[in-house]
Amino acid sequence: MFKEVELTYQRIQKIANHTPVMTSTTLNKKVNAECYIKCENFQKTGSFKFRGALNSLSLLSPENKKRGVITHSSGNHAQALALAAKLIGVKAVIVMPKNAPKVKVKATKGYGAEIIFCGNKPGDREKAVDLLIEQYSYKLIHPSNDLEIIYGQGTAAYELIREVGDQDFVFAPCGGGGLLSGTSIASKGLCPNVKVIGVEPKNADDAYRSFRDGKIYPSLNPNTIADGLRTSLGTNTFKIIRKQVDKIITVTEQEIVNAMKFYWTRMKLIVEPSGAVSLAGVLSNKINLTSKKVGIIISGGNVDLTDFFNKIIEELNHE
Amino acid sequence: MFKEVELTYQRIQKIANHTPVMTSTTLNKKVNAECYIKCENFQKTGSFKFRGALNSLSLLSPENKKRGVITHSSGNHAQALALAAKLIGVKAVIVMPKNAPKVKVKATKGYGAEIIFCGNKPGDREKAVDLLIEQYSYKLIHPSNDLEIIYGQGTAAYELIREVGDQDFVFAPCGGGGLLSGTSIASKGLCPNVKVIGVEPKNADDAYRSFRDGKIYPSLNPNTIADGLRTSLGTNTFKIIRKQVDKIITVTEQEIVNAMKFYWTRMKLIVEPSGAVSLAGVLSNKINLTSKKVGIIISGGNVDLTDFFNKIIEELNHE
Repeated sequence: MFKEVELTYQRIQKIANHTPVMTSTTLNKKVNAECYIKCENFQKTGSFKFRGALNSLSLLSPENKKRGVITHSSGNHAQALALAAKLIGVKAVIVMPKNAPKVKVKATKGYGAEIIFCGNKPGDREKAVDLLIEQYSYKLIHPSNDLEIIYGQGTAAYELIREVGDQDFVFAPCGGGGLLSGTSIASKGLCPNVKVIGVEPKNADDAYRSFRDGKIYPSLNPNTIADGLRTSLGTNTFKIIRKQVDKIITVTEQEIVNAMKFYWTRMKLIVEPSGAVSLAGVLSNKINLTSKKVGIIISGGNVDLTDFFNKIIEELNHE
Repeated sequence: MFKEVELTYQRIQKIANHTPVMTSTTLNKKVNAECYIKCENFQKTGSFKFRGALNSLSLLSPENKKRGVITHSSGNHAQALALAAKLIGVKAVIVMPKNAPKVKVKATKGYGAEIIFCGNKPGDREKAVDLLIEQYSYKLIHPSNDLEIIYGQGTAAYELIREVGDQDFVFAPCGGGGLLSGTSIASKGLCPNVKVIGVEPKNADDAYRSFRDGKIYPSLNPNTIADGLRTSLGTNTFKIIRKQVDKIITVTEQEIVNAMKFYWTRMKLIVEPSGAVSLAGVLSNKINLTSKKVGIIISGGNVDLTDFFNKIIEELNHE
């Protein structure tokens, strides 16, 4: 599978951003380790999801290319698929619940995708997608469980390690498991002795339990600020994670916010809650990192700042 | 003077961060140019001020090194001087008004400086500094007008152009003029045909008027969100800017906030209002940049996010 990640990297590297790796003296002192932070918040569309989406669409058959692709997501995968489709020249249809946040609808539309709204009840999205596929033969691009997606997400860790050298640990957040499984393939392929650590919100610990018990637990509408990590593992991501990931640890909501605050205030990086979960794991002291080289993957930086800027503009106008 | 910037670069490069240069496809399309953004928000202490402070302290006489340094500032220069002093092993005394924002006091103290509070009236700070110098023979490190400071600030543009090649334009914000004058020396030294553009808030346009009329106008407590740009030019910065800068343009408060919002939402960069002023100038359409290579300097990213995170934590606790 590592070979696939390498091929994927060659395939997508001209279009996907080679995102920067950042370091922080303050952080290194805090954890007494050498941390290398891979900033996928600087990826196109603001998250690593662009890598997998671009890879999937690069591999479409001519027929599927003509018909177009579809997904159900109101999150980062939707925006990633929308832009990748635009750049590859494929029609993208995104099914979103009627109550999806306006800022996400706007961003996805902005990248040129067609949005179809569905009901807000569980199952409504899947039903709508099935109906549209039946009618138009769109190809479904799943947010995390397809191998092409997993290989694409793996290119972030691939770039990280190729740039800064072998790591003792790599920390990645875990939701559907696309990023974590891809990270484990790339990391172990480049440096077999690395320990790959998945980090999950304690309030959405389905992957932690699945990993422990050897069976996939569904994620039942968990309450976490890390909205990108509310989904369950799929069959492929579960299998890869069980085989290649060394440990999954969990972090509290407060730990997630603290990590996010560190990025914003000390490193001047806009990181979304889900994206800060890997650092929260590093800062949780659950794993001894003394004098180690530690890769940390920021998954994304899409935060709704509408209120924040409206307040600033309001204050301007009152002066 | 360009030679001095080169020597300064060699002197400080091992301690100051070589900050990344970022690009944005969206921005390039918006202004129909190739923009290279030098991210001094990623500099140590969160702003370019660290470069000048470090250079000044690197050049202290053994006697001054023993006695220590002093400045009056509650802004980025205070934090920069505090950390540079700590790293060089010199005592730093910072005079701040009693009503200085707590977050700035805390940050400056955090870097190990001694803080002396003074009154809030105009002139109180200068008086307190004079008194302390008389008593302890500290060396005053001015925030912008010393040549060592100017050369230090110039190393940002020096790194930018050496990294990405000759530019047609370089945009820098202008407050006391340390960054702008240093930028002009470095930029013209490396590519003599570059046009260096200073950008100032319309509400604090003293440098614009000084440049136009050939005499220094004092900045009289102007009302702008760009709090780092409220100061006036000094004799040295004025002289260099008059000679080497091609134009100073002004931007409105709304334009500053729009540029800041672009950085935060599209580029995931935390940039303070003063730091976004150069981009505001680029976006103002006052200068035709079609198909040009445009360097843009972000001066810093120190924004008080206490309220923002308190609100998030409050929401967590209510759930």
